[in-house]
Amino acid sequence: MRLVTYRRAAAAPRVGVLTEDRVVDLPGFASMQELLERGPTGIDEARAAAQAATTTHPLAEVTLLAPLPRPRTMRDFMLVEEHVRNSFGDVPEEWFRIPVHWKCNPDTVIGPDVEAPWPYYTDKLDYELEVAAVIGAPLFRASVEEAAAAIAGYTIFNDWSARDIQFREMSVGIGPAFGKDFATTLGPCLTTADAFDATGARMRARVNGETWSEGSIGAMRFSFPEVIATLSEYQPLHPGDVLGGGTAGRGCGLELDRWIRPGDVVELEVDGIGVLRNTVGQPDAPGARTVDLRRPTEEQEEVP
Amino acid sequence: MRLVTYRRAAAAPRVGVLTEDRVVDLPGFASMQELLERGPTGIDEARAAAQAATTTHPLAEVTLLAPLPRPRTMRDFMLVEEHVRNSFGDVPEEWFRIPVHWKCNPDTVIGPDVEAPWPYYTDKLDYELEVAAVIGAPLFRASVEEAAAAIAGYTIFNDWSARDIQFREMSVGIGPAFGKDFATTLGPCLTTADAFDATGARMRARVNGETWSEGSIGAMRFSFPEVIATLSEYQPLHPGDVLGGGTAGRGCGLELDRWIRPGDVVELEVDGIGVLRNTVGQPDAPGARTVDLRRPTEEQEEVP
Repeated sequence: MRLVTYRRAAAAPRVGVLTEDRVVDLPGFASMQELLERGPTGIDEARAAAQAATTTHPLAEVTLLAPLPRPRTMRDFMLVEEHVRNSFGDVPEEWFRIPVHWKCNPDTVIGPDVEAPWPYYTDKLDYELEVAAVIGAPLFRASVEEAAAAIAGYTIFNDWSARDIQFREMSVGIGPAFGKDFATTLGPCLTTADAFDATGARMRARVNGETWSEGSIGAMRFSFPEVIATLSEYQPLHPGDVLGGGTAGRGCGLELDRWIRPGDVVELEVDGIGVLRNTVGQPDAPGARTVDLRRPTEEQEEVP
Repeated sequence: MRLVTYRRAAAAPRVGVLTEDRVVDLPGFASMQELLERGPTGIDEARAAAQAATTTHPLAEVTLLAPLPRPRTMRDFMLVEEHVRNSFGDVPEEWFRIPVHWKCNPDTVIGPDVEAPWPYYTDKLDYELEVAAVIGAPLFRASVEEAAAAIAGYTIFNDWSARDIQFREMSVGIGPAFGKDFATTLGPCLTTADAFDATGARMRARVNGETWSEGSIGAMRFSFPEVIATLSEYQPLHPGDVLGGGTAGRGCGLELDRWIRPGDVVELEVDGIGVLRNTVGQPDAPGARTVDLRRPTEEQEEVP
């Protein structure tokens, strides 16, 4: 089952089920967050509601939003060795031992077909081709089996990245922030766990119709259930928490030394989920800034 | 005004105002989050409610919780040069140009007097002496003046850190996670902005009554309003968002090469806010783990 959050014209967002070319409205759910909070029962209720539903809309007449427009929390792991090797030149020893991750900004999630912002402080905007797991039950000190059972489903995760400032930030040591926090796309739907091959699904990224990236979700150092169980030892997890699994090997422009440009159309496709499409916006004008985050020119190079 | 979230025995948490030795109950606020969402009006209403209040409790008869038990989001900046120099040996060039920060876990906030957990995977638990600003109005593309006006108040922020795994994580590049996400203490109160000297307040940390750290909030590379304005260019901010300003110089054991031990009592004191006290728990037993996060022994050293 492919769950969506959708809107018709200016109406409030609603929850639905995506079929081939229609959205089946699900009455009785105020939001995807509420559906997830009902746990496995919520998924069962959604399935029953979809079978009994009487209201459907042609896909062309609705706007799909991010399936979970405001995740409760959002982490992004880095679990695919080929991506690490291609991005950093080698694979740091600790990568093999720790499911390294950072925490994303749940307040800048955008949906399918929304224009991706191009911040004034980057010349190297990039996409990242990822799948994210969405938690559908409260967890604390969970076993791998309990962790697996708590995954409500999966969505495509485009971790838009401004590579220049990202690496400048990472040179200080505490990870990226301005380099990634301006936007993350989720969508086009949340495919329930029973309907998704979380170890073998094929993934690809296209820019203006040309395939740039192609791979499989399979090559992960730790599985989603292993990562979730490990997190949950000291951190409670809740319905609506989102965990990106990490960029696929050759799954971003950085690894390919190919760079998207304003106006490009970026499509991420994952078998069993669908196609997540965004157009890249025009760069913001630099203007006067409180703190100018651009790399300084040579005259400005001096620091205190 | 010093706002608190408190509880009597097993009753539900309530919002109050802290006086010398009593808590004045504030009727009409379901939670601190709700108070903050009313914006500057909420603070005015709280002040009026405190003046009209009839119910007060001796401080000794209530439990203070974190003033904001579940921040909406939580970021931690690294704005004090002396801390960076002491922790990393030098100050990376980009530190001067970018208000570097990472995002904390809002789901592991603990309050005053709660025992701080000691995860099995660390031998080097540490405290960090910080002040955090709490946002009390929605912001987007704010000026420095608007950012300043949106700070509802300040609280003490103890960013508990497991230094060994933190540096192992940071060697990969995307920042700390397991090294910090197990606990953050906020408290004992939220001092409203009008009642706090955000540029000059003195801060100190004591371990078992002995002063280990002493400094001033003054030495910040960027001010809270500058940081908030800069964040808000691409990221909406909301009431209930928390921003740690960074560890004070010599404000943690790492900088002093002194290490807290199980059972120690750690007190962070900031003039105008109060004393935030936690006892350090006993280390968890290693046990069998899904992913063992301890540094491997020599026999286990080999990686694929």
